[in-house]
Parts: sequence; structure tokens; C-alpha cells
Amino acid sequence: MPTREEIQTFLKAEFPHNHCIIDQVGGGSATIRHLIGPNELRPGGTVSGPLLMMVADVALYVALLGEIGIVPLAVTTSLNFNFLRKPSAEASIVGVCKLIKVGRSLAVGEVALYSEGSDAMVAHAVGTYAIPRRGQGPSA
Amino acid sequence: MPTREEIQTFLKAEFPHNHCIIDQVGGGSATIRHLIGPNELRPGGTVSGPLLMMVADVALYVALLGEIGIVPLAVTTSLNFNFLRKPSAEASIVGVCKLIKVGRSLAVGEVALYSEGSDAMVAHAVGTYAIPRRGQGPSA
Amino acid sequence: MPTREEIQTFLKAEFPHNHCIIDQVGGGSATIRHLIGPNELRPGGTVSGPLLMMVADVALYVALLGEIGIVPLAVTTSLNFNFLRKPSAEASIVGVCKLIKVGRSLAVGEVALYSEGSDAMVAHAVGTYAIPRRGQGPSA
Amino acid sequence: MPTREEIQTFLKAEFPHNHCIIDQVGGGSATIRHLIGPNELRPGGTVSGPLLMMVADVALYVALLGEIGIVPLAVTTSLNFNFLRKPSAEASIVGVCKLIKVGRSLAVGEVALYSEGSDAMVAHAVGTYAIPRRGQGPSA
Repeated sequence: MPTREEIQTFLKAEFPHNHCIIDQVGGGSATIRHLIGPNELRPGGTVSGPLLMMVADVALYVALLGEIGIVPLAVTTSLNFNFLRKPSAEASIVGVCKLIKVGRSLAVGEVALYSEGSDAMVAHAVGTYAIPRRGQGPSA
Repeated sequence: MPTREEIQTFLKAEFPHNHCIIDQVGGGSATIRHLIGPNELRPGGTVSGPLLMMVADVALYVALLGEIGIVPLAVTTSLNFNFLRKPSAEASIVGVCKLIKVGRSLAVGEVALYSEGSDAMVAHAVGTYAIPRRGQGPSA
Repeated sequence: MPTREEIQTFLKAEFPHNHCIIDQVGGGSATIRHLIGPNELRPGGTVSGPLLMMVADVALYVALLGEIGIVPLAVTTSLNFNFLRKPSAEASIVGVCKLIKVGRSLAVGEVALYSEGSDAMVAHAVGTYAIPRRGQGPSA
Repeated sequence: MPTREEIQTFLKAEFPHNHCIIDQVGGGSATIRHLIGPNELRPGGTVSGPLLMMVADVALYVALLGEIGIVPLAVTTSLNFNFLRKPSAEASIVGVCKLIKVGRSLAVGEVALYSEGSDAMVAHAVGTYAIPRRGQGPSA
């Protein structure tokens, strides 16, 4: 299975706009982080909702790549997102993903999002990825 | 806060059709179980989907009662459910709930469902309850 | 594609415990109903939540069978459910499903639930079915 | 209730980073659009997932403002998102929201997303907003 560095290199090459940093991957889980600066903040000092959803989606993708290898064509099919608390404007967002099923064509995982340094979950997501079969595009 | 026995007694009195057994409640979590017999099975020996969803909903309700006291008017507002694996036809269904937010008017929790004796999650749910304010019905 | 009568006959044979009546199926949609009596009611005269979820699930299944033919092995993989209003204790529950995607291995549909004779939606669901490939079980 | 122009002006003032254009609002619904250019595209010519989720969230917010008046403190509490088809890289994304419940403290709506000029839904969302009570912040 790919290492953390290999997945980070893949993300940088394929998704150059994406600035998530992988802290850990493997064993059906992943932890990633994203810096928060003016571009990620909204009026009132809140972190952009789409930024939170993107971090959840990437955490799930990274955990999955760590489990099935680097499969560029895996695509998100669903994301269920709960916003729980206002994140800090001054801390990175950390996403911790645990895969709960990796099947033949679908993988499901849950992601807890935190402001770095705090134990209070700011958002929670459950997402599903469609895994392509060999020689095919996404099967969904 | 109410004890496990008090919540079990409340459930039996208010929801006499419901046969969930509370194993643990408190500290923002709950574990409940439901026996599986012919009434809960469907052709092919699979556990009824609505039974699984009911156990998830009750696990969330019990965890919430353990946190806010016995509040009969709390009502489910949403339930996001993922079916992961076929449960055993011969084991009880166990639901383990962890609350991830208990706010002024909404509570959110996640529930993992298992066939007793197995570590493989058979289903996963995230649900939301509306908590009534004093002197009111549900606030949703 | 199968007729309403063929799908109704299939449901009765394969799911004898299920008492949903198909009013319409075809064109990517289905309307079904379920009588409400003492067995479907809970204290306070509310319709059982699992009954509502079951009707949503069956509406989706029937709409899908009307689109892809009678495929017994299609299985629900997710159900996102919102409870909106207290249903009437004296009216049938009607579920109206519209499929929003039927892909190679996944189908997605939404379901609106009503108390018969009322325009006020009592619950709303979005569900996903995994469609087996020829010669295979469910592909999820 | 506010007009389309008043809500558009409010959005521009409060969320200057947001470039959604309101086509219609009122009667429990809203239609908005977002131009697609290089900033919104990802490798392979696909529209960014977070952009789709943002459009869904804004469509819901606009529909809600059209129903309850301009209430800045309404906040998203949940978003359930299904990705259905690859959007066009050369057409605006159009989001059509229909509110399905506007209660005292929660509103629920569904959103269909399209590439302008096409009838094929590219994504579907169901979201919930918490509505603050007078003199309060968000009640969730």
C-alpha cells in the first residue's frame, strides 16, 4: 500500500489547488489538516462551510487510497454533513477519517473535524466513494 | 441524571411495543440491544431494515435521555443511515451510540450497529433530535 | 418493463410480511400506500417512525424495479430521512418516489411521504440502491 | 417579504466572496446560478465538489430568506449531498431549491443542481437551517 509521502505527492500532482497536508494514513484511517487564513474565513470570523466539506472529502479520499492503493478514478457519491460548532478562526482544521466499510465497489467512512488543539468536534461527515473496477471508470 | 434502570422503566411504560434492552447509558453514550427472532427476519435470513433503523433511533434517544434527563417530547428530526453488511440471523443487534453534540435545541449522535459477538459494523447512523424547551413541545 | 400488477405480485410473494399497495409505477417514479391501524401507531397517536422509513424504502424499490425490471438482489445502501410533521393517525401513509439517477451500479431516488388527503409532507427521504451486475450478488 | 434584489444586495454586502446570482426567489423556492471558469474547475475538467455544495447551501439560504425575511443568523446545521453526474465544464451551475418545511426553529429544503441548459441533475442536496429566535443567536 502507498506511504503517506506517496499519497501526498499524488495529491499535489493531481490536485494542485488542494493544500491539505496528510499527517497520518493507513490501517483504514487518515488524519489531514488545512491551514486557515483570510481565504478560508467568512464574515464574522467563521471558517467557510465548503472548506470544511472539502477537508472531510479529502480525508475520506486519503484514507481510501491508503487502503486500496492510488486509484485516481474513485469518486465521491455522497456526503452527509453535520455542522456542530463554530470553528476557531486561528487554528488549522484537522480531519480524522475512519473507514467503516471498504467493499468491492463502494467505500464508506466517517470524518470528525476539529480546530487544532481543541477536543470539541466542529463538524461530522459520513461519505461514500465509488471504487472503479479494473479497466473501468467509476462504476456508479 | 437518570440511571439505566430509570430509563429502561420509562421506555417500557411509554413505548410498550418496544423491546430494546439498555446495556449502558451515561457519559454521552448508550449501548442497547434487540433480540432477533422470526419477527425480525426477512426472506433470505436478513434482519429487517426498519428494525435496524429503530434500534439506531432508540440508541440515540437513550443516550440523549442519559444526558438531559427524561424528556418525553424530544423527537427525531433526521436520520442518515448506511447499510454496510448483512447482519447475522442468529445474534442480537447491538447499537452503540455516541453523542457528538448536545445543544440548546438540537442533539446529534452517531450509532454503530453490530451483530452481537462480531466486530464488523452492519450499519451506521447519524441522527438529530429536537429538544423541547421548558413548557413547550418540540421546537422544530 | 414489469407492470404494476407484476411488481405487486412479486412483493407479495417475496416479502409476505409487507403490506404496501402499489398505486402507480413507471417512468422513473412510483406511488405506494400503507394502511394505518393500531399496529402502526405509537403512544400519542403518532405513526411509527420505522413504518415511515419502510414505506420510503419500498417506494424507492418499486420505482427502481419499474425501471430496471424485477431484480431481487438490489439492496438499499443508504437512506437519509427527515421527519417533518406528525402524520395523521387516521389516514394511510402515501409515498411518492422519483428516481433521480439510475446508473450502472447505483440508483438514487427521493421520496415524499404524506398522510392521504393532505398536501403537507410528513417526511422526506433520499435513498440509494446498489444494483447487482448480471450473474452477481449486490455489487456494493 | 424581501424582493430578489434586496436579497441579492444583502448577499453581496455580507458575503462579498460569494458570486451566486439569484434568478428567482419566493413562494418557498429559489433558483440561483454560479458561473464556471478556471477557478471552479478541477483536473479532468470537472466542477469542484465544494463549489457544488456551496451553490446548494446558498440556494437553500436564499429560499429561506425569501420566506422568513432577511435573518443573517440563520445557519446550516446539516447538508446531505449526492453527486450524480459530471457537470459540464462550460455551463453555469444552476441550483433550484424547494423548501419542504419551515418550522419555528428548523427549515428543511431540497436542492437540485444542473448544468445550465441540461435537464440531467448533476447533484442533489437536502439541507437543514437553524432559525434564530428573536433576540437570540442560532438556536441549535
